[in-house]
Amino acid sequence: EASAEVIDGKAVAKQIRDEITDEVSRMKEAIGVIPGLAVILVGDRKDSATYVRNKKKACESVGINSFEVHLPEDTTEQEVLTHISVFNDNPSVHGILVQLPLPSHMNEQNVLNAIKIEKDVDGFHPLNIGRLAMRGREPLFVPCTPKGCIELLHRYGVSLKGKRAVVIGRSNIVGMPAALLLQREDATVSVVHSRTNNPEEITRQADLIISAVGQPNMVRGSWIKPGAVIIDVGINPVDDINSPRGYRLVGDVCYEEACKVASAITPVPGGVGPMTIAMLLQNTLISAERIYNFH
Amino acid sequence: EASAEVIDGKAVAKQIRDEITDEVSRMKEAIGVIPGLAVILVGDRKDSATYVRNKKKACESVGINSFEVHLPEDTTEQEVLTHISVFNDNPSVHGILVQLPLPSHMNEQNVLNAIKIEKDVDGFHPLNIGRLAMRGREPLFVPCTPKGCIELLHRYGVSLKGKRAVVIGRSNIVGMPAALLLQREDATVSVVHSRTNNPEEITRQADLIISAVGQPNMVRGSWIKPGAVIIDVGINPVDDINSPRGYRLVGDVCYEEACKVASAITPVPGGVGPMTIAMLLQNTLISAERIYNFH
Ligand SMILES: NC(=O)C1=CN([C@@H]2O[C@H](COP(=O)(O)OP(=O)(O)OC[C@H]3O[C@@H](n4cnc5c(N)ncnc54)[C@H](OP(=O)(O)O)[C@@H]3O)[C@@H](O)[C@H]2O)C=CC1
Ligand SMILES: NC(=O)C1=CN([C@@H]2O[C@H](COP(=O)(O)OP(=O)(O)OC[C@H]3O[C@@H](n4cnc5c(N)ncnc54)[C@H](OP(=O)(O)O)[C@@H]3O)[C@@H](O)[C@H]2O)C=CC1
Repeated sequence: EASAEVIDGKAVAKQIRDEITDEVSRMKEAIGVIPGLAVILVGDRKDSATYVRNKKKACESVGINSFEVHLPEDTTEQEVLTHISVFNDNPSVHGILVQLPLPSHMNEQNVLNAIKIEKDVDGFHPLNIGRLAMRGREPLFVPCTPKGCIELLHRYGVSLKGKRAVVIGRSNIVGMPAALLLQREDATVSVVHSRTNNPEEITRQADLIISAVGQPNMVRGSWIKPGAVIIDVGINPVDDINSPRGYRLVGDVCYEEACKVASAITPVPGGVGPMTIAMLLQNTLISAERIYNFH
Repeated sequence: EASAEVIDGKAVAKQIRDEITDEVSRMKEAIGVIPGLAVILVGDRKDSATYVRNKKKACESVGINSFEVHLPEDTTEQEVLTHISVFNDNPSVHGILVQLPLPSHMNEQNVLNAIKIEKDVDGFHPLNIGRLAMRGREPLFVPCTPKGCIELLHRYGVSLKGKRAVVIGRSNIVGMPAALLLQREDATVSVVHSRTNNPEEITRQADLIISAVGQPNMVRGSWIKPGAVIIDVGINPVDDINSPRGYRLVGDVCYEEACKVASAITPVPGGVGPMTIAMLLQNTLISAERIYNFH
């Protein structure tokens, strides 16, 4: 029985981090500048704390300076804005990231818009998204998760031009920018979402599927065109009594079934996840290089 | 033989202009403000001159003030920027439009970016396009031609939610924003462009087709799903010895063939064309109302 090639995001991310490590030290030696990433965390969500810790560790591992501000849940929006403004002005900080979600008493839009666009390494600013959507314009930063998806495809030599691609999900942080990126690569893109009447039928026409939904095992084998390439962004906990934590993580795509139909697929975990952080490091490096005009 | 309903853009545009006329006079009476549109034309292109003249006439017909600056072909970019800056500061001007294309010695991006976003009635600023792409964000202005397409569909009672839509063309001014607008209406959108391998096959799956390509009669009857609704944005001159001008205008869609398959279709001329100017007037009115907080 045919079995899909496993797209090893962990290995590719490792390789990219090695490349970043070299580039960071080259920059330091040449002009004495060390890229810096500032992360602002508000509140006590465990998952958010884990993400922030992982980002910090990743920075350290490649030689990027990390700055962290951890604020209590009842911080005011104004206090967060003040911290952003200080990082905006700090020349040692080249990227600023506010860990989402924010506590509900804050206006996420206001907070994100306060980040200087030159330091918006998440790439979520509407001005940046607008440039991503427009032909002939260049975004300052490409959002990390969709950038990681495209990078995986490039490193595995998957050609996109003229290919039918289906993106399942249209969130501001994954699905929508992923569709814009694929279109920039000259794929023919269809976007499937929760209001789509026949997601299975459309998905089955695709040479490439990027799924960012958050529904465990939603994409079954029957949804997949034989030979399609699958990038599974979903990270979904499902109960598992055999796991020490009582649950395990699965993607949006039913991996066992997909393996028999697809030509290549990202696993969960170990696929897109590690790429997201690698792209964050890359965006921080790009930012520092741009600010110092170092190439 | 079945024959598609003709979507009468001329009649709908007339109706919208009447609504705008009423609203403009209501505003004038209530707060003494008259909306104003400034148009900057550079060079001697005949078609551009015609467009500008039509916009001016349309303004007059609904009671909107129009301001026009006509500059010679060899004007410097700096001079154009100065005119924009004066209009940006002029409180009687609520919309500013630079007629494209600009002479080749100018940087279109610089010029368009100089327009104050609150007066960018064309809606072409990347910040505006970004907001259009993002869920939970609202653009200040929706670009006129795609807005006109959606308005036609609304006025003809065509439901979009969950429908398969294909947009042919992905330009910054028509195709791309049209696709974003359809997605905001919960259609399932595919974008076809010049690199698409099998445009006919994909187009035939659509309940709704918006074509903005610039190729006369490219979309044949065989491309159309029976009962589909067609919005033909293309305006293409083709030789016609029977016409006094030696040519006539046709759309991207082969009208005779499409009429037999589609359930409804916009003619060319008389479809989307008149809607574009009506939407420009509407955007100018909206801008003045927003600036004076008048509702
Ligand atoms: N690997 C990584 O680094 C990252 C992984 N993720 C994971 O990716 C997944 C998606 O995240 P995110 O984009 O933030 O999620 P959101 O909840 O913001 O968006 C989910 C999208 O999926 C669509 N959707 C929901 N149900 C269905 C359905 N039944 N059929 C088709 N579409 C559906 C929604 O449609 P509609 O718009 O109509 O509501 C929405 O557009 C999650 O599992 C998340 O954990 C996210 C970020 C990074
Ligand atoms: N009614 C109105 O008021 C208006 C009408 N128009 C008309 O609409 C048409 C399009 O205008 P505009 O968007 O400015 O044009 P552009 O030339 O900027 O864009 C044309 C688009 O069509 C795509 N395309 C070209 N050839 C093909 C093909 N064979 N198959 C599929 N796609 C193709 C191009 O693809 P790619 O991106 O790969 O190059 C591009 O995205 C023109 O006829 C224009 O006159 C325009 C504005 C207003």
